[in-house]
Amino acid sequence: MEFPSELIEEAVKEISKLPGIGKKTALRLALHLLKEKEAATQSLTESLLRLRKDTQYCGTCHVISHTTDCTCRTINRDVSVICVVVDTPDLLAIRSTGQYQGMFHVLGGVISPIEGIGPEDLHIQSLVDRIQAANGEVKEVILALSATMEGDTTCFYLSRKLEGTGVKISTIARGIPVGGELEYADEVTLGRSIVTRTNYSSGSL
Amino acid sequence: MEFPSELIEEAVKEISKLPGIGKKTALRLALHLLKEKEAATQSLTESLLRLRKDTQYCGTCHVISHTTDCTCRTINRDVSVICVVVDTPDLLAIRSTGQYQGMFHVLGGVISPIEGIGPEDLHIQSLVDRIQAANGEVKEVILALSATMEGDTTCFYLSRKLEGTGVKISTIARGIPVGGELEYADEVTLGRSIVTRTNYSSGSL
Repeated sequence: MEFPSELIEEAVKEISKLPGIGKKTALRLALHLLKEKEAATQSLTESLLRLRKDTQYCGTCHVISHTTDCTCRTINRDVSVICVVVDTPDLLAIRSTGQYQGMFHVLGGVISPIEGIGPEDLHIQSLVDRIQAANGEVKEVILALSATMEGDTTCFYLSRKLEGTGVKISTIARGIPVGGELEYADEVTLGRSIVTRTNYSSGSL
Repeated sequence: MEFPSELIEEAVKEISKLPGIGKKTALRLALHLLKEKEAATQSLTESLLRLRKDTQYCGTCHVISHTTDCTCRTINRDVSVICVVVDTPDLLAIRSTGQYQGMFHVLGGVISPIEGIGPEDLHIQSLVDRIQAANGEVKEVILALSATMEGDTTCFYLSRKLEGTGVKISTIARGIPVGGELEYADEVTLGRSIVTRTNYSSGSL
């Protein structure tokens, strides 16, 4: 693509580094900023820099928080359950369901030998420490990881690590999505939904 | 949507001001920046600020250029034709066709009474001055504006303004898109394509 100026080319290069933004979109965004007042670009860039600089992570649950009163310390949540998630988007997704009032623990990734991510790169030990520190207060750990090979590997590793702590370990249910048609479900999911069938009660549906 | 921190909320607010970017995408981008090294955010913001601050517009053709040697002054283009476009994206689109080697003139908008944009807000006078300054060198002005009411109004106004200069005024052809099916074309376009029919020659197709 031919750019009207090197400044735009450079900006497009930078913008298109963002996920899901190609050269064309990047160019549209760059030209939009040129149309807008300089103040608009100013406030955008300032907020991005502030975000990157000032964002902190809770030392206990590793959830993003710019203050110290993180969800893991607020008393209005159920402290007996910890939901283990890979990253913030998953946390937000689960929180937005309104079905979970317990605490969270962000791993920061999944065990992936291909990408060279081992258990020591994740917040696994801190989870164990956290549970032990709560001396018996934590009753259950819900593993809410993706149903991928890496996710399952991480689940397996976590279950082994947590054996000693005596907490109940559960994973989110794998099965037919709500509203999903049986005939279109893949056999692995369908098979799993039969193996992990639950007792029927009108409430459970 | 519930955000993990005010910093993210603020960043999302700023990012989602960009065209075609909603709150969800903005959040994904913000979390991406948090994942990346701080240097990434730095270079992104710097390039955006540089773009906004240092970008200049050619005083003659109003095309974006961070230097003074703008396309309108480069001798390797046909100086006898000026293509009038609304804004940079249109210019880039026409340039990328490779079918046009002449010069450009960016209006900066279209006449739109509803949005309170009058002829004096556009680079119309400077077009007239430019043609007169070229004393007879400019032979043709191509009006490449969108086929909207505002576009047509602007075309009409321009044609009136340019009457005195004695240049030939043409507009880009309206008709059936290449590869388009007649039966699916709207009657206005089809009608126009009949009225403005061109003499057949294998080259014209």
